[in-house]
Formats: sequence, structure tokens, C-alpha cells
Amino acid sequence: MQIPEALLQHRPLVDAEMRSLLRERPLPIYDMARYALGWQEADGRPRDDGGGKGLRPALCLLVADAIDGSAAARARAAAGAAAVEFVHNFSLVHDDIQDGDAERHHRPTVWAQWGMAQGINVGDALRELAQLALERARDAGASADTVLSAHRLLSDSALTMIEGQYLDLAFEGRATIAVDEYLGMIERKTGAMIGCSMALGALLSSEDADLAAGLNRAGRRLGCCFQIRDDYLGVWGDSAVTGKSSDNDIRRRKKTYPVVYAFQAAPPAERARLDRVYAQAEVGDTDVVEVTRLLAAVGAKEATTQAAREQHDAFLTALKACPLPAEARATLESVAQFILRRER
Amino acid sequence: MQIPEALLQHRPLVDAEMRSLLRERPLPIYDMARYALGWQEADGRPRDDGGGKGLRPALCLLVADAIDGSAAARARAAAGAAAVEFVHNFSLVHDDIQDGDAERHHRPTVWAQWGMAQGINVGDALRELAQLALERARDAGASADTVLSAHRLLSDSALTMIEGQYLDLAFEGRATIAVDEYLGMIERKTGAMIGCSMALGALLSSEDADLAAGLNRAGRRLGCCFQIRDDYLGVWGDSAVTGKSSDNDIRRRKKTYPVVYAFQAAPPAERARLDRVYAQAEVGDTDVVEVTRLLAAVGAKEATTQAAREQHDAFLTALKACPLPAEARATLESVAQFILRRER
Repeated sequence: MQIPEALLQHRPLVDAEMRSLLRERPLPIYDMARYALGWQEADGRPRDDGGGKGLRPALCLLVADAIDGSAAARARAAAGAAAVEFVHNFSLVHDDIQDGDAERHHRPTVWAQWGMAQGINVGDALRELAQLALERARDAGASADTVLSAHRLLSDSALTMIEGQYLDLAFEGRATIAVDEYLGMIERKTGAMIGCSMALGALLSSEDADLAAGLNRAGRRLGCCFQIRDDYLGVWGDSAVTGKSSDNDIRRRKKTYPVVYAFQAAPPAERARLDRVYAQAEVGDTDVVEVTRLLAAVGAKEATTQAAREQHDAFLTALKACPLPAEARATLESVAQFILRRER
Repeated sequence: MQIPEALLQHRPLVDAEMRSLLRERPLPIYDMARYALGWQEADGRPRDDGGGKGLRPALCLLVADAIDGSAAARARAAAGAAAVEFVHNFSLVHDDIQDGDAERHHRPTVWAQWGMAQGINVGDALRELAQLALERARDAGASADTVLSAHRLLSDSALTMIEGQYLDLAFEGRATIAVDEYLGMIERKTGAMIGCSMALGALLSSEDADLAAGLNRAGRRLGCCFQIRDDYLGVWGDSAVTGKSSDNDIRRRKKTYPVVYAFQAAPPAERARLDRVYAQAEVGDTDVVEVTRLLAAVGAKEATTQAAREQHDAFLTALKACPLPAEARATLESVAQFILRRER
């Protein structure tokens, strides 16, 4: 399944906006930031492909275009798009430290390259760059009060994301997590910033706070859909397509949706076997086979697909409540369809 | 030497302002934040004494009072004061992880109490709370454009502080640091946020950007004076007063002002002995004695006192360039005098 053109069309604009924030910053910490953003190698050589899917900034600009197709509105929204992408990268750099992940997209993570202490600094610096990026909306013509509302939205959403990260780590130490608790965690960890992206697109293009709130609600559902699909691919994805080992999440004992569901749905005997595997410090090859078999036995694959679809459908319902042109709605629906069905 | 009344008078206001940001936040990550702020124990019991010197918020409110003594101006500045104190605590929580410090003010640090991963989250959350604190200046009557300027100032200053932290860590891996490089580092790491505190006090009370810039320049010098005095106390302070082991910084091989000076001023033979001690992984008791003796031999104590005084005098000069009432200037001068001469 191809990435929709709608998600790709604004990448050069977001890229230019972000790069303008990192211009004339010669200290090596900014080279580390450029590395984290995928712009250059550890030795400073430039890289071409650069970065992840850019889902969040794309959603911000898609929404802005849907509401006001003018270049002026797009320029204001580009500031918000750059800000959410900086926040996203700040969270990735810190997450990699917290999870002890030494690799991301086939490259050493920032902490693996420069140590944990500088990794914390790089994440912290990216967070500040997000603030400076957002302020550019004022230069692009947004009213001061709108930019202040955008600031509040960004900080509230980032704080909610940090709460989600807190819960995710706290869950690691617990034997059981209810499916509802899990959904509450991912709504914070992934949903909050995707909701924020769409809300910023509305706020910076229209100054319409109600529309922004509606799109925020919709975006949170889309974020949960995205995360559950991610969880699905972490167990059943084709490693040739995802670029990750297909049993990656089981091996790392991550309590993602399929596992949380299995814990809840498994009959006592199967439940005891899951308890045993997830109580271990290390998960071996035979354990991976056993967990995969148990997930199949309790129907976790179907349940995960269904859960992603429910979030997708809740997104569509929330989107319907937002007064948007039909064409814009159709574009956002096609993006959601992609998020639900993507293979990587 | 007693803490001047001027530094203490606004503590209840800052405390109330900060606590309002943490009200109705039941997730345990906020209890960790309250612990970091000194408000409660690890088990949730409230603490009375709470927190550090509160120098930064006090400077913000002192400046605001000096410019406009009204309650309205003080309320606007209180938002800035709370913001800088949240940023300061964010930096402490991350610094403790980066430096591997397990204790602060005789209590386990956040990471020592809850692990490195949650420590990163608590620091990140405190940084977001700073944003939300600053936004309250708008509710307190500051114009939207002034609050935006305050946001820019806070983010620029925090980013500069992070640069300073980057340099501090980078210096650890280097054999020699010139005194000028060291001064450039502490101007970022300590000076930027103290400058920001004074500038925010001016901006939020008067909306006068020039005055804010002048006080920012002055505050950076005061911050350097504060840091060099800190460095002095880290070697020659009375441990009964400072609450830290008097040879703490030598034992931890910290390249603070006295050591940086000694490296630069020592004749070749003494220089070689310093090189040897600071190239070791561990610093033993005999090494501490030797370094203390070498510092005395090259006059590092006098040089450190002199360097702090130079920053103090530069502060006075920068302050004279700011149009402030004579009484206000006198108060700020007495605070600087305290910072220069404090014993803890």
C-alpha cells in the first residue's frame, strides 16, 4: 500500500521550515539534532532520504489546506507543522534512552552514538526548537492570541504525551494491564500529539477554536488507530516490509495491544503460560513461538484488527462532526484508510 | 551571611503560582514532580522547607517590583517567576541523571528514587509546566504580544542553557579547557536563565523590550558570579554550612573554575601532576590532598575570588546602564553582594 500523495505533498515545506530553525547553529549539539532528524550522518555528511513518515506535520497542513487553501494560511500552519515534528523527534530521542533501544531506522540512536547524557540534551534541545518553530506563525501573520492558543495546545498535548510515556513505562512493571487502561495510555502517548497536529492546522488557518477542538478529538482517535496498527505490525508485520524483526515486540516483552488483549481473553491455563513468559527477564526462541501460538489461539490478531478499525470508525464519526468541505473530508478519510491498512 | 529579605519576600507568591499548575493532577508522575520541587517526600507526605534558594523567581519579581510596584504588575511577573523556577527544576532533574548524582539536598534524586527512565519523564514534564505557567501572564493582564515575547525569551534562554550543559559534558572528555571557554560555558549554563529571570521581570511589568535586554545582559553576569562562587564553595566551602563535602568537586574531577584556572596557570611540573590526577577514573584521598595543595600553590583561591568579583562588577556596570529607580538598584546591588559573598 502506497503512502498517499496527500501525506507527501507538503514535505518540502515542512523540511524548509524546520531547517530554518537549525540554520547558523554551529555547536555540535545541533549536528546531533540534525542526525536525530535524519538529515545527516554521525560524521556530518548529508543524508538524502531523511526522517520518518512525517505523519503529524502532514496532518497539520492537510487540515489547514482543507479549511483555507491560501498560501498565507499554509505558511502559518507550516510553523505548527514544524513544531509538532520537533516535539515528535524530541520524544523519540528520549524514548530510545528510556527503552534502551540502540537502533532506529537501521542507524544507531542518538544515545548509542553519543552517550545517554548528550542524548538527553539533544531531546531537550529539540523540544525548545519546537517552541521557536511555533513562534514563527506570528511572523507568518497569525494573531498574537492565536499563537498563544497554539502554544497552550502544544504544551498541553506534549504534557499529555509525557503522561502516556510515564504510563507506558509504569505498565512494564505490572503483571496485568486491562485493555481499557492500554487504550487510555496510547490515547495520551500517540493520540495527543496527532490530535494536536490536526488542531494546530485548524487553529492557525482559521482561528476557529471549536473546529480545532473537534479535529483534536478526531485526531486522538486516528492516533490510537495508528498505534494499534503499529502494534499489529510489531507482531504480524512482514519484516521485509517493516524493516523490523517480525517478532520484535514479543522478544522485547512489550505489552502492546495483542498481548494486553491476550492476557485479558486467555483462559486460565493459557493465561498462566503468558504470565510465565512475561515474568522472565529474557524471552527465548521457544517462548516467542509459544506466545505467537497463544496469541493465535485467543484470536488476538482479529481482535487487534478490530480494535484498529473501531478507532478508525470513531475517527470518521468525529470528523463528520467537524464542518469541513466534502473534498477535504475525503482526503482525510483516505489518509485514515492508509493508516488502518498500512503494511509498514 | 543571611539571605537578604529581598530574596525571600516573594516566595509564598511563587509557591502559590507553581502549585496552581500542579493542582488536580493525580497521576503519580506529578507526585514525582512535587518531590523534585521539594514539596513532598517520596511516599507523598508533605514537606515543609521545600526547594532551593529560589534565586531566579526572586530576581524576576524584584525587577518587576522595581519597575512597577503595583499588584497587577507583580501578578503578571509571578507567571514568569514560576516559569523560570520550573525550567530550573527541569534542568536539575536531567542534570542529576547526566552526572549520575544520586543525592541532592540530602535526598535521593528523582532518578535514584524512580529510575532513569521516569527521571527523564519528570524533567520533561517540568519543562511543559513552565510553558503553562508562563501562559498565565495573559490571564493576569499582559498583552498577547508581550506574553509571546516572554515565550521567545524563555525558549531562547532554555536552549542556551542546554547548550551550556552540552559544553559542560563535552568538556569532561577534554584534557584542557581555557578559562575563557569555561566562562563561555557557564554564561550559557547558569547565566542564560538568570538573565532570563531578570528580563522576564522587566518585560512582564513594563513591556519595555530594551530594559528587558539590558537586565538580561546584567543577569548573565550575575549568573556567572553565582556560578564561580558556587565553584569556590565546592572546593573551599565549609561543609558544615554548604551541606556538601568540602572536597566534593575535586573528588568528582569536576573542572570548575579553580581547576580550569590551575590547569592554565600551573608551571609544567605542577601541570603534569594535575594532568595525571584528572586522567584517572577515580580520585583517591591522596589525590585530593595533592590537588588542594596544587590549587593553593598556583593561587587558584585568590583567582577564583577575583573572577567572581569581576563578574559582580560587570553586573553593576550593566545594571547602571538600565534606567531603574535608585532604591531598586540598591536592592539588586545588595542581592549581588550576597551572591558574591554567600557561604552556601
